[in-house]
Amino acid sequence: MQQPQLLHEEKVFKDPVHRYVHVRDQFIWDLINSAEFQRLRRIKQLGTSYFTFHGGEHSRFNHSLGVYELMRRILEKFEERIKLTYEEKLLCLCAGLLHDVGHGPFSHSFEKVFRYHHEDWTRAILLGDTQINRILRRFDDDFPKKLAEVINKTYDNKLIVSLISSQLDADRMDYLLRDAYYTGVNYGNFEIERILRVMRPQEDGIVFKFSGMHAVEDYIMSRYQMYWQVYFHPVTRSAEVVLRKIFQRAKLLFSEGYPFTQEPVMLLPFLQDKVELKDYLALDESIILFYMQQWRGEADPILKDLCGRFLDRNLYKYVEYNPRDFRLLAELKEEFQKAGIDPMYYLEVDTTSDLPYDFYRAGEEEEERIPIMLLMPTGELVELSQKSEIVKAISGKRRFDYKLYFPLDKVMALPGNISRKIRERLGVMEDA
Amino acid sequence: MQQPQLLHEEKVFKDPVHRYVHVRDQFIWDLINSAEFQRLRRIKQLGTSYFTFHGGEHSRFNHSLGVYELMRRILEKFEERIKLTYEEKLLCLCAGLLHDVGHGPFSHSFEKVFRYHHEDWTRAILLGDTQINRILRRFDDDFPKKLAEVINKTYDNKLIVSLISSQLDADRMDYLLRDAYYTGVNYGNFEIERILRVMRPQEDGIVFKFSGMHAVEDYIMSRYQMYWQVYFHPVTRSAEVVLRKIFQRAKLLFSEGYPFTQEPVMLLPFLQDKVELKDYLALDESIILFYMQQWRGEADPILKDLCGRFLDRNLYKYVEYNPRDFRLLAELKEEFQKAGIDPMYYLEVDTTSDLPYDFYRAGEEEEERIPIMLLMPTGELVELSQKSEIVKAISGKRRFDYKLYFPLDKVMALPGNISRKIRERLGVMEDA
Amino acid sequence: MQQPQLLHEEKVFKDPVHRYVHVRDQFIWDLINSAEFQRLRRIKQLGTSYFTFHGGEHSRFNHSLGVYELMRRILEKFEERIKLTYEEKLLCLCAGLLHDVGHGPFSHSFEKVFRYHHEDWTRAILLGDTQINRILRRFDDDFPKKLAEVINKTYDNKLIVSLISSQLDADRMDYLLRDAYYTGVNYGNFEIERILRVMRPQEDGIVFKFSGMHAVEDYIMSRYQMYWQVYFHPVTRSAEVVLRKIFQRAKLLFSEGYPFTQEPVMLLPFLQDKVELKDYLALDESIILFYMQQWRGEADPILKDLCGRFLDRNLYKYVEYNPRDFRLLAELKEEFQKAGIDPMYYLEVDTTSDLPYDFYRAGEEEEERIPIMLLMPTGELVELSQKSEIVKAISGKRRFDYKLYFPLDKVMALPGNISRKIRERLGVMEDA
Amino acid sequence: MQQPQLLHEEKVFKDPVHRYVHVRDQFIWDLINSAEFQRLRRIKQLGTSYFTFHGGEHSRFNHSLGVYELMRRILEKFEERIKLTYEEKLLCLCAGLLHDVGHGPFSHSFEKVFRYHHEDWTRAILLGDTQINRILRRFDDDFPKKLAEVINKTYDNKLIVSLISSQLDADRMDYLLRDAYYTGVNYGNFEIERILRVMRPQEDGIVFKFSGMHAVEDYIMSRYQMYWQVYFHPVTRSAEVVLRKIFQRAKLLFSEGYPFTQEPVMLLPFLQDKVELKDYLALDESIILFYMQQWRGEADPILKDLCGRFLDRNLYKYVEYNPRDFRLLAELKEEFQKAGIDPMYYLEVDTTSDLPYDFYRAGEEEEERIPIMLLMPTGELVELSQKSEIVKAISGKRRFDYKLYFPLDKVMALPGNISRKIRERLGVMEDA
Repeated sequence: MQQPQLLHEEKVFKDPVHRYVHVRDQFIWDLINSAEFQRLRRIKQLGTSYFTFHGGEHSRFNHSLGVYELMRRILEKFEERIKLTYEEKLLCLCAGLLHDVGHGPFSHSFEKVFRYHHEDWTRAILLGDTQINRILRRFDDDFPKKLAEVINKTYDNKLIVSLISSQLDADRMDYLLRDAYYTGVNYGNFEIERILRVMRPQEDGIVFKFSGMHAVEDYIMSRYQMYWQVYFHPVTRSAEVVLRKIFQRAKLLFSEGYPFTQEPVMLLPFLQDKVELKDYLALDESIILFYMQQWRGEADPILKDLCGRFLDRNLYKYVEYNPRDFRLLAELKEEFQKAGIDPMYYLEVDTTSDLPYDFYRAGEEEEERIPIMLLMPTGELVELSQKSEIVKAISGKRRFDYKLYFPLDKVMALPGNISRKIRERLGVMEDA
Repeated sequence: MQQPQLLHEEKVFKDPVHRYVHVRDQFIWDLINSAEFQRLRRIKQLGTSYFTFHGGEHSRFNHSLGVYELMRRILEKFEERIKLTYEEKLLCLCAGLLHDVGHGPFSHSFEKVFRYHHEDWTRAILLGDTQINRILRRFDDDFPKKLAEVINKTYDNKLIVSLISSQLDADRMDYLLRDAYYTGVNYGNFEIERILRVMRPQEDGIVFKFSGMHAVEDYIMSRYQMYWQVYFHPVTRSAEVVLRKIFQRAKLLFSEGYPFTQEPVMLLPFLQDKVELKDYLALDESIILFYMQQWRGEADPILKDLCGRFLDRNLYKYVEYNPRDFRLLAELKEEFQKAGIDPMYYLEVDTTSDLPYDFYRAGEEEEERIPIMLLMPTGELVELSQKSEIVKAISGKRRFDYKLYFPLDKVMALPGNISRKIRERLGVMEDA
Repeated sequence: MQQPQLLHEEKVFKDPVHRYVHVRDQFIWDLINSAEFQRLRRIKQLGTSYFTFHGGEHSRFNHSLGVYELMRRILEKFEERIKLTYEEKLLCLCAGLLHDVGHGPFSHSFEKVFRYHHEDWTRAILLGDTQINRILRRFDDDFPKKLAEVINKTYDNKLIVSLISSQLDADRMDYLLRDAYYTGVNYGNFEIERILRVMRPQEDGIVFKFSGMHAVEDYIMSRYQMYWQVYFHPVTRSAEVVLRKIFQRAKLLFSEGYPFTQEPVMLLPFLQDKVELKDYLALDESIILFYMQQWRGEADPILKDLCGRFLDRNLYKYVEYNPRDFRLLAELKEEFQKAGIDPMYYLEVDTTSDLPYDFYRAGEEEEERIPIMLLMPTGELVELSQKSEIVKAISGKRRFDYKLYFPLDKVMALPGNISRKIRERLGVMEDA
Repeated sequence: MQQPQLLHEEKVFKDPVHRYVHVRDQFIWDLINSAEFQRLRRIKQLGTSYFTFHGGEHSRFNHSLGVYELMRRILEKFEERIKLTYEEKLLCLCAGLLHDVGHGPFSHSFEKVFRYHHEDWTRAILLGDTQINRILRRFDDDFPKKLAEVINKTYDNKLIVSLISSQLDADRMDYLLRDAYYTGVNYGNFEIERILRVMRPQEDGIVFKFSGMHAVEDYIMSRYQMYWQVYFHPVTRSAEVVLRKIFQRAKLLFSEGYPFTQEPVMLLPFLQDKVELKDYLALDESIILFYMQQWRGEADPILKDLCGRFLDRNLYKYVEYNPRDFRLLAELKEEFQKAGIDPMYYLEVDTTSDLPYDFYRAGEEEEERIPIMLLMPTGELVELSQKSEIVKAISGKRRFDYKLYFPLDKVMALPGNISRKIRERLGVMEDA
């Protein structure tokens, strides 16, 4: 126990982002081959983004291998600077590999409607009756618990925590590069090798040599660009709105005893709010898409319509929305209602916001972010935005975006004057 | 009718392989947005290859856009060399976009077991009661039929046919580049821009300027490499074997009246061999994966086991197999049977073969391939292998690969001496 | 005259940055083949940067073709938005191709010492007795003059001027991409195709669709990064300091009648300050490097030492320098003098500064920069920094960098206590 | 002595091909900074190829660093498979770095005319009175000699020799990748990381795991393509023909006592055939180009003309040539002579040939090549072409190319009927 178990020959995965993912450890190999980890192949990394960027079809499996590989390389670089025990290294590698293992299909939308947090499921998978738990316990009975703490950011070795959860960690670095690669959007590129070269381990977290500041700036800019160009793209959000409405409608119908043509067996635990780990693990994107296919044949016109929209990518249009214009929203709801378009499902404000970089400010715990620290030639540590004007310029500035979503086709199909009136309100006189 | 219908502003899709896919034509735009085309998002381009190359998760939607874009670029290059009518150009573009629209989930395995050809479904989609048919007919009532002929290679304009179906066509060029990009395997790269530059339209097909011969050689080599490195990878084929066995088992159980816990509604038409177009269109990978999830809970031990294997990537191992060694196979079947491992499902020879390049030989119609012709400075046309020693070396040489697949874990779990005996036969004394 | 003269077949250059450079015009083809343009092959694009980034060995010929190609693509994009005459288009293409034709070897350093501006030589080449002038006049007698005005930014068509000389022009776009490619530094990458797509011609310059703002931001950031990471790299500047000192010393020796072993024939016009166009055109980097080889054998110890340093890359070391610390500099000069190290050649403050983006401010003509304008969906034009917080953050902020250069080896070779005293002053107690 | 001297911090060079070149060893660092190695910055890797591919302007310095880095990575991979002494490793690294150190400017042409071998100069630099020799001797007095043997392929450790001189060595791998990168030609790409992964050290050389055969095939094909697409490009060879003629003419004029306007001091040792190491080391491309500039002003019409041609890239045209058609050549020479165009300088057959892969055949020592061996799963070694049909197809087949070069402009300028007659003979009735 607690002994390294090395494969007798290194295994590799061909990876377009990191060229190869290298596995030398039997534990890692077994974790990758566990049922719970393989399940991540059936969950897309970018949720509904493939409706906007058709290349963004890669899975969380794909990304999780990438984070593991980056973590492995970071540890390799640290080898001669800091002495980590085998357990500490394995914690890092496992955290890289498993940090997303609790994600479900279309997490964003599904979690909102069914009210859970994927983080809780990650913990459940690590600690519960799973193949992963059994593999981890082979190392040490305490190991799953420690790993859960690392992923939950409560582990007491802050260096390890910062490698997987900080503003410049293995997770973020991999997803920016990977999502950029698959979508074909250049913005996510930054000099990963340079960043790995200037990363230095310290007792309570990683820091970056000042000489590499520009590479760090570049990373922050990439992150900023990817958020606004890809992750928050309004079409992607439109698909999420439709998705939420589907779940919302199905939930309501179920609670009202609606007679589904075929019982949605795999979703029952969620609809009844009695989800056990095995139910959660059986859920993936194919389940959701299967029910959409079935439901597009249901009698309920709203469920039927929404599922068809998602499957055929007939999404909602959007206009900019001023969040203080309560009256407009209220009036539009009324107009929609009168026109026979249920605003509960067909009129939705979607809000998103991003804080590209922040440093800790005393007394603002709700947003407690670990700042990025630069290691000066003098040995002194200085917070990034003190040195970089560019980072300073965007630091701590949360940017919001509000959009109002609705099915323009339904509005267009209304009698002329009603349609016109609503479209005037929406500001979409001409077809978008 | 028969008039170009241009979008008032060009639309683009960001594409990692061709940078952008450009759409200027209302017909194309509407076809992309049709339900039948959007369905291709739910079918992977490379079937089970993602089990070997985790990056290969892209869809047929992704590839179809790419073929369309290459076709568009080819036509642009031809603009000043040949006068094509708008209808001819639209035929080319639509053929590029829609040539794969009849593909179903995991086509290779599914088609084999349920005995159909996706080509027939393509035709049915073009000619039947579909959104695509209605859009195509907006151009001309005859247009769907012509398009079906182009895709079926029976259209009388051989130039148009050769652009989508020859040994160096828009389809093959896109998939080599695209599959290489997503899997991260370099072998598929070749100088696409150079090939486009040396392509010349002729009455009965495309030819290539002699000065570009090396680029054509390079393409042939890429094709050869991708086949053996990626498309025929033994692990990918292992997943296909398991998949076929699942379908085979489900079909048998159904025919025997096995009481499925929940009726596999969406598969009934296939199990009953009464498939209509709407049934086919409702089928995609999520349906297949959904039933696997359900079936892994079924009582039938074989169906249950096979589905778990596929979902958790617990695939069969393989050994080289000499196709003439009938006795070995017969004996192994017997041993498996005796040991309680049904050889019908757990012992399978998989054969694959590739003919990287061939030219037409009189009297060998069954393999009628259009040769690649080089346009010499003198104006003469010469078949590629006459000029290229490398192509000559591989031309017409079909290469076969035979492998014997079986679940090593099941064999290992047998009593020691039985296990050992079988493994000796298989030649896998040590764990692979 | 004034008629397009097309090549009977398009010619291409293989280009690693833009894939191909396309030439269809006889004028362009002839200009490329002129002696004055071919001369640019013997002048490096990045001057002394190859001492820092060994990949940065590409020539101005290389870059000039790239600017031409970008210009050609921009005009292609503009084709359907604005009607330009053939003369206007040719002016753009020629400006792209020839804007740098007046550059000499190691321009930065050489110009400073011999006091001229390469812009004047560009004009001289366009208007003087050159092959280029004769080719341009084939189009129209006035054409060379108009072209000189475009390059000099005095031409009255501001759109044309802005394509080659603005904060986001074909020149800057090419060099950022190209220098990034050859040096291997990622920072210079940005989404060139996206920028070309959102560029719109207007009467008095180019503007950019608001929807492409992030691509423009990304370009500005790339520019900022390339300046500080590559163009202003302290080692590159060290080589420039040495170079200036060589020219300065040679000039002084010549003026004092120093007996050079062999008369530096090709440099005489410069040393005598009587340079004619033919003398200038005969000058390239091989001439400079040749004389360094000769001079490293001269008797004058300073010239000999400096040339050896440059050829063998034995450059000066540097420390940060506070420009207000006059006393330090004065004292160091004295110390150097006393120690027998001539401070005129061996102690130099080098200053550099960058203004990554600026907009016009009334009354500040000395720095008159054309701002980047965004074209809003409403048709309104808004200056970039009004919309982009990131650009606003760096807009108009000139950043300075001061470094003090000296040969550490010479200081180290001084007697112990003197050496130590000087190094204490310099703050380089340990070997850098 | 014989102790590793590590830098106290690793140094890196940014490299576009290998991302970074890593240096940890003081010896390597000092060798890179030696005058003789820095000289390689002034010699282009691809000679006259930049006239064809403008991107191919990189130096031998650039390539030498790359070979060193590949060698370093190979040794890293070997670390756990074979125990090499520090001296052995250093021999490998130094061989990688210094194998080309004896190259001069435009080696191919210069060596032919002045009859020497750069290999001899490499040995002279390693063993003579140079900075490099002094650095190498710091390790051990015998070290320069051993290194010279390694580079000369006479060293008794065949593994070390094969790493730098075999059909798949660090030198070839770097130049294919590097030349492909700089010229922008894709053909040179192959999966370097895969090849490094399947390379295995054996006592008498490196072998490659059979599972990596396709990567090796791909490398052989890349090599084949680069030779015919890039290295043997007829325009590049045209420049070499002109270059040889310049040297030939200058040599003749010198031997005849022609009064050069200024004595070509730096070339005297070559013209007098009394070259010492210091003379050779002073020679680089700037020297050659300098004299061309001077000589284009000379009175001798041939020297003047040839130098202008090279500098202004006004090269010779070419036609295919049948080497057995002696009469044609004889007649053309006569025609040229009669027309006043000296055939000695203006009519030249250039021959090139390539043997893309070969294996040793008993009794054919003149072409003794070490074959590429595959390591089978059984442990057996099999020669590559036994397993690869593609390699077999090209193995041992030397391909020749003959071209006849001449200045078409001079022929065109002849009186009509004479010009026509010569052009008919040459087969260039229309302007190429």
